[in-house]
Amino acid sequence: MSAAEARTAVIALGGNALSPPGERATIADQFRHTRKSLEPIVDLALQGWNLCIVHGNGPQVGDELTRNELARGEVEPLPLGVLVASTAGWIGYMIQQSLENALQRAGSTREVVTLITQVQVRPDDPAMADPTKLIGHDLTEGRARSLELKGHAVKEVDGAYRRIVGSPAPWMVHELGVIKFLVDRGTIVIACGGGGVPVFRDEELGLEGVDAVVDKDLAAAVIARDLGADLFMILTNVDAVYADWGTDQQRALTELTVEEAERLDAAGALGEGSMAPKVRGAVDYVRHTSGRAIIAELAQGRDAVRGTAGTTILP
Amino acid sequence: MSAAEARTAVIALGGNALSPPGERATIADQFRHTRKSLEPIVDLALQGWNLCIVHGNGPQVGDELTRNELARGEVEPLPLGVLVASTAGWIGYMIQQSLENALQRAGSTREVVTLITQVQVRPDDPAMADPTKLIGHDLTEGRARSLELKGHAVKEVDGAYRRIVGSPAPWMVHELGVIKFLVDRGTIVIACGGGGVPVFRDEELGLEGVDAVVDKDLAAAVIARDLGADLFMILTNVDAVYADWGTDQQRALTELTVEEAERLDAAGALGEGSMAPKVRGAVDYVRHTSGRAIIAELAQGRDAVRGTAGTTILP
Repeated sequence: MSAAEARTAVIALGGNALSPPGERATIADQFRHTRKSLEPIVDLALQGWNLCIVHGNGPQVGDELTRNELARGEVEPLPLGVLVASTAGWIGYMIQQSLENALQRAGSTREVVTLITQVQVRPDDPAMADPTKLIGHDLTEGRARSLELKGHAVKEVDGAYRRIVGSPAPWMVHELGVIKFLVDRGTIVIACGGGGVPVFRDEELGLEGVDAVVDKDLAAAVIARDLGADLFMILTNVDAVYADWGTDQQRALTELTVEEAERLDAAGALGEGSMAPKVRGAVDYVRHTSGRAIIAELAQGRDAVRGTAGTTILP
Repeated sequence: MSAAEARTAVIALGGNALSPPGERATIADQFRHTRKSLEPIVDLALQGWNLCIVHGNGPQVGDELTRNELARGEVEPLPLGVLVASTAGWIGYMIQQSLENALQRAGSTREVVTLITQVQVRPDDPAMADPTKLIGHDLTEGRARSLELKGHAVKEVDGAYRRIVGSPAPWMVHELGVIKFLVDRGTIVIACGGGGVPVFRDEELGLEGVDAVVDKDLAAAVIARDLGADLFMILTNVDAVYADWGTDQQRALTELTVEEAERLDAAGALGEGSMAPKVRGAVDYVRHTSGRAIIAELAQGRDAVRGTAGTTILP
């Protein structure tokens, strides 16, 4: 089977897939954890799948925001979009090196590259005016007030303070053409790290960055949809989609049609937090392609690849 | 002329091409300065050249080192190689967006991408044991001593202190195959930002990062050589190669053969600092290809493209 005939999978890896739980992960910890996280991707690569990998950056961009704030007295802080590009650079480097090494040990010479990616959002996306995405580490009240004075939105959550930004919907990955070109060739492409840098098209200036973040699962779903991928897999820290999440009746779902998924979502039965966008991304992808989506726990990624773990979303 | 038949140029842009002189450049300053710096590249792109761009990261990685040091109490500092990947991500984003916007205003739809790049060095490179490359901003004596205690080499220069690291010779750009594939297709590729992440090949583990920096002009020369580029252009803050630099007899050279260049270098007549590696990179490239190399001042980049500024190095 040549690369051009191979099936294509898009894999979304949670930011926690790269940074182990707990505070102050050193870079050695992160490399070690990353190697472990890549096992299901190695399996797919060895089976001949064409692959695009999207990763989160939550813990890492939190570190960057802290560095930028604490050094503000000496060096200008970078805006959020630039920090997304920065974390996409260094997390991409970690993944591409770790994955190529793992593939080589398994006898594969497939190449892995990281592309810095811009994701177009609509400047009038209502999410821009209504920030809901918590970013960065917990802040003391003093630091929270200081950030507010500098124009950043801050929210109190469980007695601590966090920065909060808009999370507009991705509608197009600007570099899709190059991603497709490389993926079809068999190159494993890491793209849209941290959801990609959110940009909009200004009539006069062209592309311009916005101070926001794009949900990485939704960005990955857009890539999977627009590549016409055969498989879209979201590897996260929950082992399946649950019905009645957080209640006595909660139960893991092995399979879900898009209609069932939409019904659960509309009823608010997916639980708050990060599962709803994952399911919405998966549904949008399945609706537009003939592919299947799997949402599974990272630690069960190899089983999920075999179809024996996680939740599969079907047409 | 199709992209596959087009001539190929590799352009090395100094870190100062992106960050304006003076302290505390905001990101808006950097974007504005970057747009201006890209004019010669826009000219080449409009003339149909296939292009690969390599950029420096001196001022930017200096900022990153400061951020990492000042935040050390709260978040783990990142090693130098990871910071190179980080700056390659965000500077690459700035260049790709600014360049594509400039091309679009000029009526061109050529696409621009950033690849995170690893550069293989030899683990036994003597430069690893003998650090000579100053990095980061000026340090107070107190901060210098604290860095030394953490295992970093520090040097006193003109009454201030700087970090100093090894700068091993690049001998192979790991992602060359993908760079060539995209460049030949007409995609403008930004690669080896900050000289690329230095790595070596460990027999058992595969590629491993090293705590060092690669000279970006030498890395660009390796790309130009291995792509078989027709033109290699280094845009910097000096308007030409000078003979007898720093003496009463100093004079700008319009043309230089590789033999003349090597004679000047051997005689120490190129002056200390950054010109010697530029000339050595250019000479190595010209020797291995039938191309020509130009070293010119960034502000005269458009004239250099026309052949009316800078120093041309010929076989």
